[in-house]
Amino acid sequence: MSITVVGSIAYDAVKTPFGERERMLGGAAVHFALAASFFAEVRVVGPVGDDFGEAELDVLRSRGVNISDIERVAGGKTFFWRGEYGWDLNSRETLDTQLGVFEGFQPKLSATSRSSDVLFLANIQPDLQREVRTQLPGARFVALDSMNLWIDIARDSLVQAIESVDCVILNDSELRQLTGKPNLLAAAQEILSWAPADEERPGVGGPQVIVAKQGEYGAALVTRDGFFALPAYPLETVIDPTGAGDTFAGGMMGYLARRGRVTSATLRRGMAYGTVLASFNVEDFGVRRVASLTRPRVEARLREFRKILKF
Amino acid sequence: MSITVVGSIAYDAVKTPFGERERMLGGAAVHFALAASFFAEVRVVGPVGDDFGEAELDVLRSRGVNISDIERVAGGKTFFWRGEYGWDLNSRETLDTQLGVFEGFQPKLSATSRSSDVLFLANIQPDLQREVRTQLPGARFVALDSMNLWIDIARDSLVQAIESVDCVILNDSELRQLTGKPNLLAAAQEILSWAPADEERPGVGGPQVIVAKQGEYGAALVTRDGFFALPAYPLETVIDPTGAGDTFAGGMMGYLARRGRVTSATLRRGMAYGTVLASFNVEDFGVRRVASLTRPRVEARLREFRKILKF
Repeated sequence: MSITVVGSIAYDAVKTPFGERERMLGGAAVHFALAASFFAEVRVVGPVGDDFGEAELDVLRSRGVNISDIERVAGGKTFFWRGEYGWDLNSRETLDTQLGVFEGFQPKLSATSRSSDVLFLANIQPDLQREVRTQLPGARFVALDSMNLWIDIARDSLVQAIESVDCVILNDSELRQLTGKPNLLAAAQEILSWAPADEERPGVGGPQVIVAKQGEYGAALVTRDGFFALPAYPLETVIDPTGAGDTFAGGMMGYLARRGRVTSATLRRGMAYGTVLASFNVEDFGVRRVASLTRPRVEARLREFRKILKF
Repeated sequence: MSITVVGSIAYDAVKTPFGERERMLGGAAVHFALAASFFAEVRVVGPVGDDFGEAELDVLRSRGVNISDIERVAGGKTFFWRGEYGWDLNSRETLDTQLGVFEGFQPKLSATSRSSDVLFLANIQPDLQREVRTQLPGARFVALDSMNLWIDIARDSLVQAIESVDCVILNDSELRQLTGKPNLLAAAQEILSWAPADEERPGVGGPQVIVAKQGEYGAALVTRDGFFALPAYPLETVIDPTGAGDTFAGGMMGYLARRGRVTSATLRRGMAYGTVLASFNVEDFGVRRVASLTRPRVEARLREFRKILKF
């Protein structure tokens, strides 16, 4: 099974209590793709500038990621983000964002990327998410991420985007902000009640699966008939949380793409894989840890995680 | 097996987004005792004033709690707390605290209370916790709770109190504040390294079990050789979080007292019972829900909780 992800491919400059790095490979689509690559063929769609290096592309290539739809914009500059984390790594400040080639980005998907069974719309402008969604009408499982900015300035478009997907993966604070409901279950139930107004799209039923990302506390899953939650994998040292949420989504969606069926059991196991992948991601700066990871190490940590959670 | 708890017996005035109540039965020792009473014989030690009613004592009596060591101070007023919760119930403001009979409280434990196998030192001045600890030298498992106030103004005494117990149950923010370590595991490891300076007490080895209360995210357990975490039991409506932490501790410690052995397995199951009891506690104001609960309902929710967590 294959999976297409549309989102940012970036250079990140990050400062944490453990050090700082300039111009690391980053971006939601990159973190997602590396994590998902342990389970399925991944196709990445997104723009980069002239400044984007072959070494960075090689990181993706070495994990078998299909990069044919990474569009190099002549004369453009790659998306750049600079952020700094506070003492406890739970708060972070964005110091600089340079959209570069993301300004005016029009996603062009090849036939290959359009043929994927699974689609992940990483956090980009909701209009673009909807545009890409229409290019994969036959995708069997579609999820999206978003952020507080779009809830603030493009809520209507975001709601329409959500109505067009099967799964919403948001930070729990964003779920609350989006719905105005402080209780996580109530917020999720609210979104599960959203369905597209367009009666002529009988196949599209609106979101069925809500995933709340809770940072160091883990993640929770809400469907119409169930709830599931996992703590984060315990780590004594966290170096750089950047990309943890996208890595989680990549592990989860990659596993779902591999299994081919979305059931309560595969969703739960997918979340466990996502949690494990995210725990590797935060152990080093940028994508270093996940890019050099092996599947046996992923499996070993999943077994360890199961033991930890038993009672 | 029996369990002694020392702590506040109070009247609470609480305002949440779901309503407000004046002069409800509350206090850490009360919430703890009601939860623990589902598993073991509980002895409550603490002072009340002339204003404390028989109806409130009956709530404890009806759950079989031993109230012989609830000391009625002539001319005194019962501890009173007034608080208000914010929109999402995660923030709360203390509007009034009247210590009343707690000012100058000197715990006097009967032979019965001193003979318990398990002791819980609820959140009171650390000097008092240490004083009570010495009155149960033979207790097989002793835990304490505390709060940011004591870390701020009585840190040395609190550290000594911690060195004299087996188990520390704190909010995760308090664990961080107490140790200066932002990472939960690192903070817990730090406390696990504390041991009493007094070489003449060879039987006392310092804390072995650290429990981090994480509010709506659940709770985590750290021992020298293991980690465990549980999310909170999912509820669509939370009415009043007051006493959830003490109810959790009561469920956990009560279960440990019943089982008589503290092992990785009983600690984990104890935390699951604590989580379930706490979920009942927050479903209504004050102690209403837990006071009218039955053991079969507790067991039914525990079974439900197990199903929820399976993957």
